[in-house]
Amino acid sequence: MVKKSDDAASTNGAKPSWEEIAAKKRQALLDSIPAEWRIPANLVTPDTQDDVTGWPEASGWFTPQELAITNATAADLLPQLASGQLKSLDVTKAFCKRACAAHQLTNCLSDTCFERALSTARRLDDHLARTGRPVGPLHGLPVSLKDNFNLKGLDATVGFVSHVGDPAPYDSVLAEVLEAAGAVFYVKTNVPTAMMIAESVNNTFGRTTHPKNRKLTSGGSSGGESALLLFKGSPLGVGTDIGGSLRIPAACTGIFTLRPSFGRFPTLRCRSGMPGQEAIQSVNGPMARTLADIQLYSAAVVGAEPWALDPKCLPIPWRAVALPARLRVAVMRHDGIVVPTPPVARALEHVAQHLRTAGHEVVEWQEPGLQAQGVSLLERMFVADGGRAIRHEVERGGEPWRPEMAAYQDARELGTWEMWKLHLERTEFQKRYLDRWNEAGIDAILCPTMPFSAVESGKFKHVGYTGVFNVLDYSCVSFPTGLYVDSAMDKALGDAHRPLSEVCAAIHGEYNPAAVHGMPISLQLVARRLEEEKVLAMTKAVLDLVH
Amino acid sequence: MVKKSDDAASTNGAKPSWEEIAAKKRQALLDSIPAEWRIPANLVTPDTQDDVTGWPEASGWFTPQELAITNATAADLLPQLASGQLKSLDVTKAFCKRACAAHQLTNCLSDTCFERALSTARRLDDHLARTGRPVGPLHGLPVSLKDNFNLKGLDATVGFVSHVGDPAPYDSVLAEVLEAAGAVFYVKTNVPTAMMIAESVNNTFGRTTHPKNRKLTSGGSSGGESALLLFKGSPLGVGTDIGGSLRIPAACTGIFTLRPSFGRFPTLRCRSGMPGQEAIQSVNGPMARTLADIQLYSAAVVGAEPWALDPKCLPIPWRAVALPARLRVAVMRHDGIVVPTPPVARALEHVAQHLRTAGHEVVEWQEPGLQAQGVSLLERMFVADGGRAIRHEVERGGEPWRPEMAAYQDARELGTWEMWKLHLERTEFQKRYLDRWNEAGIDAILCPTMPFSAVESGKFKHVGYTGVFNVLDYSCVSFPTGLYVDSAMDKALGDAHRPLSEVCAAIHGEYNPAAVHGMPISLQLVARRLEEEKVLAMTKAVLDLVH
Repeated sequence: MVKKSDDAASTNGAKPSWEEIAAKKRQALLDSIPAEWRIPANLVTPDTQDDVTGWPEASGWFTPQELAITNATAADLLPQLASGQLKSLDVTKAFCKRACAAHQLTNCLSDTCFERALSTARRLDDHLARTGRPVGPLHGLPVSLKDNFNLKGLDATVGFVSHVGDPAPYDSVLAEVLEAAGAVFYVKTNVPTAMMIAESVNNTFGRTTHPKNRKLTSGGSSGGESALLLFKGSPLGVGTDIGGSLRIPAACTGIFTLRPSFGRFPTLRCRSGMPGQEAIQSVNGPMARTLADIQLYSAAVVGAEPWALDPKCLPIPWRAVALPARLRVAVMRHDGIVVPTPPVARALEHVAQHLRTAGHEVVEWQEPGLQAQGVSLLERMFVADGGRAIRHEVERGGEPWRPEMAAYQDARELGTWEMWKLHLERTEFQKRYLDRWNEAGIDAILCPTMPFSAVESGKFKHVGYTGVFNVLDYSCVSFPTGLYVDSAMDKALGDAHRPLSEVCAAIHGEYNPAAVHGMPISLQLVARRLEEEKVLAMTKAVLDLVH
Repeated sequence: MVKKSDDAASTNGAKPSWEEIAAKKRQALLDSIPAEWRIPANLVTPDTQDDVTGWPEASGWFTPQELAITNATAADLLPQLASGQLKSLDVTKAFCKRACAAHQLTNCLSDTCFERALSTARRLDDHLARTGRPVGPLHGLPVSLKDNFNLKGLDATVGFVSHVGDPAPYDSVLAEVLEAAGAVFYVKTNVPTAMMIAESVNNTFGRTTHPKNRKLTSGGSSGGESALLLFKGSPLGVGTDIGGSLRIPAACTGIFTLRPSFGRFPTLRCRSGMPGQEAIQSVNGPMARTLADIQLYSAAVVGAEPWALDPKCLPIPWRAVALPARLRVAVMRHDGIVVPTPPVARALEHVAQHLRTAGHEVVEWQEPGLQAQGVSLLERMFVADGGRAIRHEVERGGEPWRPEMAAYQDARELGTWEMWKLHLERTEFQKRYLDRWNEAGIDAILCPTMPFSAVESGKFKHVGYTGVFNVLDYSCVSFPTGLYVDSAMDKALGDAHRPLSEVCAAIHGEYNPAAVHGMPISLQLVARRLEEEKVLAMTKAVLDLVH
């Protein structure tokens, strides 16, 4: 069914090596950038410059209008696009250019479709001029997509060499819904191998770096998106999350994301790293620099009634929500496996204190046994096929296993009967967690998104803070607290640290306040399953207190 | 974890045979019937009497009040129970007695809990007397449950000898919800082995028969329920459905049922025939003699917000629905595998004609390829564990495989990776069906529930008409059309029949109009996933035309 395109063969007729295929793909990606959007040689910034977020302003390469457009949020741009005050073509070109700069500085893209973008933008401008009406709530807005969202004619490699040169025959259902709402597609963004590493690195495209400090990771697996968004190469992006892949990159870069419960947003016809795996459902969600943009995206997608197109979508409209005047929030200081590093612990207490001061109830959430069982289930379900799905692609592409993928390389496949028993254990776990939640009578859990604020590339460890909520399918937001790492304040614990586990010891051993100084600190707010509207409203309430 | 109770051991200390365990269980069930509810020897009806539905009236064994109560529907009884006009204790005793008669005549029960029933009824009567208010929408109403709903202290054998003497440690979540709404539990009802046969027969309890003609099957797997309900030994029962197990017994006996999509009604903490199997989700739903009773049950269960108790339940309230004035209904005359027997074909055309006459649009649904793929997926997913879950219980109980279970005995287990590929095929199938539904622009499919009106015990074949909608997770009603088999009118097709398959030839070869003469003819109405309110409203619209 899947056919490798012929031009992947090298000119001498021999089967090209994985390195050749990958190099050719990287070059094709660079070649897809028109001359006008390539950073002029005299403006290229040295690799040793860590922070490139100021480059668009400092370089002088962008016009004031391009800067004004790309510095705006989706909520700023949409009314101007809908009224015709801004042309989609101008907005699209500005974001294309800035996305190209982002890629040249942080290696954040995996594919481009600039012709489609310009043609979509022109069509939308024409429509507005002709009818006086926008096509939908996202009229004319460029929206970036993670690599695995199929767009007709583009690869969706999920980092595998084997998928290079295998263009998608159709748009993913989400892309159909977004385009009908007025979105303009222009780039897809980099991911790790199989989207199963918490940093964005693979053998095809290499590593995406953090625009605020290129020695750090922008997280994974939606780390191309987070880098692009932080650099303002996109006003609104879409990532996916099966163990933290939206929340971790959002937290690494200090942007917002919503991990919805399965069924709110359409997931059909995307490429998966582990196709057909359903014990933990992968979901997708928006990533943006403001909570308002997350909110407007969510209302737009659900408002399109995607359940008519995706049989897995739930017919639940986007609902108005009234929060109780007094929220009851449980704070999880640690999950019994890893104590968060000092900036995160500080942010937790900071937000808890603001909640208390504002009259909300703050209780402690101490359920290390539950959290550990959730992590154990996550780990076992990810490798239940003995890593065969991933091995199949690794071997088909002739590429080496990445060291981060050792768990998949070494796994033993379960038979279906064993898998059924694992399902039972997961369901009982979900029931225990729900009962505990009911007993506590809480509206939300406030907890780390990850043990770090941000972390040096190659050092990411422990997806437990996010992954347990994938096992539960709860609705979660990762949000920046407005606090930043201060190396003077957030000193390593040193001998005072009592590690909860080996990984806890390793994380605190490697914690380097100087390396992450100035990085935004994010936290996670968690509501029950299918409470997307409520978790967004609660995050707004928290932001109103702390920002 | 599961411990066989000691008293299952025979007195000489040797491990009892499966026959001994089964016989002892059957005797214990009979012994649980108090003397006052045992049919007096002089009133026992001979086994050769086919139709026992008239026995309660004819025998003189019931008081006029007992007959009045048990002939009433749930919708009749509930206002009287809520107002105190009827005492729950009286209603409960009447149904206990009639259920005992039903069991003695059709072998429809698997367990009883009369003490719990009387004590619940007294508590509810006291509550009403004290507070003047019912506890909930089902106040005081006896509700029968299929064998696999756990009730604390009772077995849930799902037909396996191995589960005899292993009382449940808790009530199933659905039982908790129903009891909180005012339901009174008094009996559980018989099922086939593993609940995976379309007739209700197993090595522990034997076979349940059809009260209207004891040579026929009451269907399966919820065939204890259907027999009990038709005999009026229960006003409202709950069954389950993974391939047709609600709809087939409802159709066999001419009662109503709703097969909801997964997530509307709580399913947690029931015993399964294939625990942990999730590729096709088992669901539960009400069975009753009127559509109004199905409706009130559904509103009561969803109104209890079961998603707070069952992590798989969806937070979708019971919704008001406004039908289009003109429905567009697709009629599926056959599924490309089996042509329905003449009574069913006649009922299809009868209902279609009434719809047309009333101004609704009737189109033909001819998608044999889709239906066949659905059946193929169903068959492969059921045996994906190589029958190991069922074999485990068969061997643990030392009982022989029933011949109906050959597919499980012979199956090959899939590895998890193969299972993932099957998931992909199923999801693509769901998408194809949804797209086809959208293209057709229909509100519902009208089709057979099964190839028969009713059928002689041992002759049931082909669950394709129901099972495809389990693969799709669509909302379905099986309803009696108001027509009955007329052996003069519904003659065998004979040489005129062009079989679509071997099973089609076999079914028509065995079709015996005389054997099913007078049996009610049911059909199935199917709406999209999670359209329970709409499919019930459409069934009401159909009934208003044809009844």
